[in-house]
Amino acid sequence: MAEADVLARIFPRLPESASTILGPGDDAAVIAAPDGRFVVTTDMMVEGPDFRQEWSSPEDIGFKIGAVNLADVAAMGATPTGLVVALGAPPETHISVLEGIADGLRMACEQLAPGCGVVGGDLSSAPALTLSVTAFGDLGGREPLTRSGAQAGDVIAVAGELGSAGMGLELLFATENADEVETIKQSALVATQLRPRPPIALGVSASTMGATAAMDVSDGLVLDASRMAKASGVSMVFDELGIARAAASIAGEALKRGFSDEDIVEHVLYSGESHALLVTFPADQVPPLGFTPIGFVIEKAAEPIYFGNRPLAVRGWNPFSY
Amino acid sequence: MAEADVLARIFPRLPESASTILGPGDDAAVIAAPDGRFVVTTDMMVEGPDFRQEWSSPEDIGFKIGAVNLADVAAMGATPTGLVVALGAPPETHISVLEGIADGLRMACEQLAPGCGVVGGDLSSAPALTLSVTAFGDLGGREPLTRSGAQAGDVIAVAGELGSAGMGLELLFATENADEVETIKQSALVATQLRPRPPIALGVSASTMGATAAMDVSDGLVLDASRMAKASGVSMVFDELGIARAAASIAGEALKRGFSDEDIVEHVLYSGESHALLVTFPADQVPPLGFTPIGFVIEKAAEPIYFGNRPLAVRGWNPFSY
Repeated sequence: MAEADVLARIFPRLPESASTILGPGDDAAVIAAPDGRFVVTTDMMVEGPDFRQEWSSPEDIGFKIGAVNLADVAAMGATPTGLVVALGAPPETHISVLEGIADGLRMACEQLAPGCGVVGGDLSSAPALTLSVTAFGDLGGREPLTRSGAQAGDVIAVAGELGSAGMGLELLFATENADEVETIKQSALVATQLRPRPPIALGVSASTMGATAAMDVSDGLVLDASRMAKASGVSMVFDELGIARAAASIAGEALKRGFSDEDIVEHVLYSGESHALLVTFPADQVPPLGFTPIGFVIEKAAEPIYFGNRPLAVRGWNPFSY
Repeated sequence: MAEADVLARIFPRLPESASTILGPGDDAAVIAAPDGRFVVTTDMMVEGPDFRQEWSSPEDIGFKIGAVNLADVAAMGATPTGLVVALGAPPETHISVLEGIADGLRMACEQLAPGCGVVGGDLSSAPALTLSVTAFGDLGGREPLTRSGAQAGDVIAVAGELGSAGMGLELLFATENADEVETIKQSALVATQLRPRPPIALGVSASTMGATAAMDVSDGLVLDASRMAKASGVSMVFDELGIARAAASIAGEALKRGFSDEDIVEHVLYSGESHALLVTFPADQVPPLGFTPIGFVIEKAAEPIYFGNRPLAVRGWNPFSY
């Protein structure tokens, strides 16, 4: 099939953006930026390092690349408005794989960020399935949330799930055949790994409720929080009950799947790909519904992150090392 | 090296954007969109189908992915304001390759679109060197140029080089070793293949001078013009003298390198990757400096494209076929 024929099959499946001024069909699209600015982020996923087709359906792959980009827009306190998608695929890839990816992107937009859609794309040959998404957002006149605004005395809060994606990945690694994969995909832990559902709308809630700093937790809570602490020139203290609460929604499933309480805390602190929102709020501000307080910000101390009075080792997921 | 260390080496080499409101360091950047809209386009290049490191230096690769994206912004009549770059590289890739790509991106922005810069990026592992760039532009309050506005009676004009990139590719394919590649890279034809220099600023000139339609010629003049003709509901007639003029700047070098006059016309009509601007202007409008008239638009006829009174076969570069 020629590129034009492939695109004709894919386009009807992609979500439309409510912010489109000029859509696909020309050399570029034109998107609304109502307050004279736009938020932009980009993320690439490659088969092998970032996903496996034995585990992820094409819909899962499309959903995830959409979700992780939407999460970065949300972490700025913005509403996602549009995506562009560059897809590289081996020439033997069946058109149904590309259609499934388009369906996954549509589901991610519809379910996580209604009004956001795909405004453009590119199709290439590549030795491994490669998706590169760039996402845009609208700040609605507000200042962007950054990593550098946390202040001593602030409450640290998270929204979304922590730890479940990492536990789900462990469960997938323990499978030995396709039947086992199908069975384990019933677990909510695995579902979070394959189709993360970051709380996109809560990025704007955080911003309107006075958040001082925000970021998406992609490489692990401790590693990402240490980046926020460094950017803000502060240290952070997590409390044990807060970390326990952060795992509340997935603890039952985790215990049932054989993870111990210690395993759960370890995953909450260190596993990547959770795409929870990590936000700091002024101490006198009750965090909005959906946020769980997990600790507080202190003046810069010897170490960036403490668990109670014990410093935590800063380690986590490093997606690219030579 | 960890991702943070790699980025620390690359960032200082990347061009800054004059439109940056919030630059790298957070989950997303914030870019100015002064008239409340922005133009966006994306393009992926993969080692193998799109470039070879035996022919292209890292600087060439960075320059080309920048230039082709800038050309798509220019074709809308917009001024490029920013790029985001997702780069996938095999783990064994030397840091100097990534630095060279950054240098190429900087040169493309500085030379072709001053003020435009890199506002964000992502680094991944991939089996083959993969670059995915998304470019943004500002329309300055003007309507975007599209492919669908050409009208019977309009003059067809091109800016930039046609045919040279394809002839350069032929010369590269004829080489047998690295020494021959080094020698042939002295040819301006090869330089255009490896580092295309689309006339970015002329996109805005076309728009302010009343252009009715515009597009970037990436897949060959006849194929791309047939797309414009189809989108506009018209046919197009190229005249022999016009096509000869379109090759004027490269004809001397082409003849010296062994191409015949017939070869040159064939390349002007059919070779891809020229990234010239194809624009239609009202008949009473003298095309701005830098544009060469090559024909005129007629009411929709039996075939989309004619060369004099002879219909031209519609074929060209199809970058992705199953």
